[in-house]
Amino acid sequence: MTRWEARETLTERTLDIRTAELISVGTELLLGQTLNTNAHFLAGQLADLGISCYRQTVVGDNAGRLEEAICRALDDNDLVITTGGLGPTEDDLTTATTARIAGLPLVKDPGVDADLMARFPDRNYGPEASYPVLVEGSLVFINDQGTAPASLLRLDWKGKRRAILILPGPPHEMEPLFVTRVRPYLQSLCPDRFIHRYVRLFGIGESEAEARIRDLIDSQDQVTLAPYASLTEVVLRVSQRLVPGQETDATGPVIQAIQERLGDYIFEIGPRTLPQVLFDLLLEKKLKLAFAESCTAGLAAASLASLPGASAVLKGGFITYDNAMKTSLLAISADLIRQKGPVSQEVAEAMAQAALEKTGADLALSITGLAGPSGGSPGLPVGRVWLATAAKGMTTQAECFQFSGDRNQVRIRAAYQGLDLIRRRLLSS
Amino acid sequence: MTRWEARETLTERTLDIRTAELISVGTELLLGQTLNTNAHFLAGQLADLGISCYRQTVVGDNAGRLEEAICRALDDNDLVITTGGLGPTEDDLTTATTARIAGLPLVKDPGVDADLMARFPDRNYGPEASYPVLVEGSLVFINDQGTAPASLLRLDWKGKRRAILILPGPPHEMEPLFVTRVRPYLQSLCPDRFIHRYVRLFGIGESEAEARIRDLIDSQDQVTLAPYASLTEVVLRVSQRLVPGQETDATGPVIQAIQERLGDYIFEIGPRTLPQVLFDLLLEKKLKLAFAESCTAGLAAASLASLPGASAVLKGGFITYDNAMKTSLLAISADLIRQKGPVSQEVAEAMAQAALEKTGADLALSITGLAGPSGGSPGLPVGRVWLATAAKGMTTQAECFQFSGDRNQVRIRAAYQGLDLIRRRLLSS
Repeated sequence: MTRWEARETLTERTLDIRTAELISVGTELLLGQTLNTNAHFLAGQLADLGISCYRQTVVGDNAGRLEEAICRALDDNDLVITTGGLGPTEDDLTTATTARIAGLPLVKDPGVDADLMARFPDRNYGPEASYPVLVEGSLVFINDQGTAPASLLRLDWKGKRRAILILPGPPHEMEPLFVTRVRPYLQSLCPDRFIHRYVRLFGIGESEAEARIRDLIDSQDQVTLAPYASLTEVVLRVSQRLVPGQETDATGPVIQAIQERLGDYIFEIGPRTLPQVLFDLLLEKKLKLAFAESCTAGLAAASLASLPGASAVLKGGFITYDNAMKTSLLAISADLIRQKGPVSQEVAEAMAQAALEKTGADLALSITGLAGPSGGSPGLPVGRVWLATAAKGMTTQAECFQFSGDRNQVRIRAAYQGLDLIRRRLLSS
Repeated sequence: MTRWEARETLTERTLDIRTAELISVGTELLLGQTLNTNAHFLAGQLADLGISCYRQTVVGDNAGRLEEAICRALDDNDLVITTGGLGPTEDDLTTATTARIAGLPLVKDPGVDADLMARFPDRNYGPEASYPVLVEGSLVFINDQGTAPASLLRLDWKGKRRAILILPGPPHEMEPLFVTRVRPYLQSLCPDRFIHRYVRLFGIGESEAEARIRDLIDSQDQVTLAPYASLTEVVLRVSQRLVPGQETDATGPVIQAIQERLGDYIFEIGPRTLPQVLFDLLLEKKLKLAFAESCTAGLAAASLASLPGASAVLKGGFITYDNAMKTSLLAISADLIRQKGPVSQEVAEAMAQAALEKTGADLALSITGLAGPSGGSPGLPVGRVWLATAAKGMTTQAECFQFSGDRNQVRIRAAYQGLDLIRRRLLSS
C-alpha cells in the first residue's frame, strides 16, 4: 500500500475539485533566472483532469506576498497548488505560510522521517530534525527523487471546502511525484471524467491546419477541438467531458473527420513524438538507419538517439559540414559539388547513398541546406534544404524544402522533416 | 528618427519606474499548451534595468479577469506590462480592456496604419480598418515582425503616476521589439543605472560554487552577487546599482575575488555561451574541429553548428553509435572494443585519433559513454562517459566522467564537457 492510500481515511468524497489556481514560489522566477516549466506542466495536467484554471501567479520567496496570493486564490478556487518554497534552504516557507493561513501547527511526520533516514543514513534526518515539517492533518506524498514531500491540506475557508496542495519546486522531483502519486488522488476528487485524444501532424502549419477543420471546431457539441503548435508538430486535442449517465465516447467520429481532412499530415494519434513514431516503426520492421548531415550537423541522429534503446535502430553516420568532408568521408566527387552546388538534389542523393553503403544500414537520410543567417542568394535562399532518403535495393528519393525561421529553427525543421521522410518511406514500402 | 522618439513629447521625466508586474494574457497558457517564455524573458530584462518585480500573473483571454489583474497590478506597481491578447483574432482584448480602465477611447493611429499598408499592401489595413486600435494618448512602438504594435499609456491611478505597457504575445515579435525599441525608452524612465556582469562556470555545480563564495555573497555592500544554474553552466551575476553621485564601478574587485576562488571553472566573463567561447577560440587560432560521437550521436557537433559561421571552425565527424560503426568507420579494432569495452579510455582515444586523421582537422573530440537508462552495471554505471581530445602532432588525452541525470541530461552534459575539454586544450597549448 502506498503512503497516500494508507493516510486516506475519508470514506466518501467531501470535496469536489472543479477549479484550481497555480502559485509558483521563487525569487529566481521573478528575476528571470528560471523558466516556469512547472506552471506549464501542471496547467496541462489540470486541463487533462478537467479542472479549470483561471489564473496563475508567481511570487518570490516572501512570506507576506505568498500568504496574500494563497488567500486570494482560496477565495476563488476549490484547489490551490503551490510549487517551490520548500526544503531546508527555503526554510519550508510555503509549509509555514500554509500553516499560518490554516491556523494549524507544523508537525513532524514519522513516515517521512523514517523514509529519509532510510534513504539518507548519512544526513541528519529524523524526528529531532527541524526539516521537513508538515501542516498538521495533511495528506502526505513521499518524494522519491528528493527530500521535500508533497502534501495536501483540506480546510474550511470562509465556509467553503478548499484544499491546498504543496509541491516541491525542482521539476525533476515535482513531475514524477505529481504523475505517480498526486494525480491519481486528485482524480478521485474530480466529479467529471474526461477523454482526451491527441492527433499529431507534421508538415502543415497551425493556421493552415486550423483553417481546414474550422467548421469541425465550431460545430462540435459534446467534444472540444483545440489546436496547438510547436516547432516540430501541430497537435489537435480532442476532448470530451463524460457527464455521469452519458458516457458514450463521441471523439471517434471527430477524429475520423480530422483524418479525412488532414490524414496525409498525421503521424500519430496518441502521445508519441515524431522521433518515437519513427523509432517504433524501425524497431517493428527490424531496420537500422544511418545519417549524412551537413547543415544539421548531427541534430537528426541525436534526436533518434535521445530515445532509450536507440542502438536497436540507429547505426551511425557522417557529419559532413565542410564541403571537403563530403568528398573525403563520403567519396562524393568534388566536381559534382562544384557543378551542382553542395545544396542540390544530386549531392543530397549521393550523400544518402554513400551513408547507406558505408554504414551497411538498411536506410539512410541525408540533409544538406543553407541554414543562414548569411550566404543566401536569389538562386539559393536561406532556408533552402535538400533531403534524400536511400534504402537497400531501392531508388534514392530526394526532395527540396524551403524552411522559415532563424538558423536553428531551419536546422530543427530540416532534421524533423528528414525523420518524417524516412517514416513515410517505411509506410509506403 | 524612430517612431517612439517622434512621439515622445515630454521634456522632463514625470514618471519614475521602480516596480513592475508582468501580466501574461492567453488561454493557451492556462491550458498548458504554451510555455510562458515571455515572462521569463521580460523578468530578466526588468532585472537588468533594476526594476523590481514582486508578482507575475497569467490570465486567459477574458476581459473581466484581465481587467481585475491590471487594476490590482496598478495598485502596487509603477508599471504594468502585458503580453498577448492583441491582434485581430484576439479582438485586441488587452487594448480594449486598458481603454476601459483608463476611461479613454480607442483610436486609430495614422503612423501604424501607414506602416501596415506599406508592408502588407494586399491586406485590408488603413484608417477604415477595425484593426489595429490603440488607447488614445499612447506612445506607439512599431512592430517590424508582426502587425500588432506595442504601446505605452501613462495614467493617473488613485492619485499615483502609473504606466501600462502593452506588448504583442508571439515571442519572436515581442523580444526584438522590446530590446530595440521599448527597452531604451523604459531605461529613460528608470531613476537608477545598473552595472551587470556575468561570470560563467562549467564543471562545478551551483551549490558547490555558491558554497565557495558564500562569504563574498554575504559581505557585499554595494554589489549583489546571485548564482543561477542551467544544465550547461552556472552563472554568477554581479550587479551594482549606480546611485547618482556615486558612480564608481565596484564590481571589479568582486569579480577578481571570484576568479581567485573559482578561476579554474570560469570559461567566460561576459555574455557568451560555452559553444560560442570555443567557436571564438578556434576562429582566433584558425583551427578546425572534428568529432567522433557515440552516446551523444551528434549533439556536440550540432551545438557548435548552431552558431552562424560554423563552417570556419567545424570540419565534420562521425556518429558511431553502433559498436560495429566504430570498427567500420573509424577502423578501431573489434578486438580492442571487445577487450576494453566500448566505454573505455582506449576506445575513446582511438576514436579521437581516427577522427583527426580521417577528417584532416586540427583537433578532434571523441565521446563514448553509457547514457542509460538501462544497461548499467557496477563496473560500468549509467552516466559513465569517456572523452578524449586529439590534436595534430600532440598526445591524445582522455578523461573519465560520471554524469548524473536522465538519459538526455547525461548526453547534454557529456557534449558540453567535451567542448570544455577542447577549450582547455586550446588555452594550454
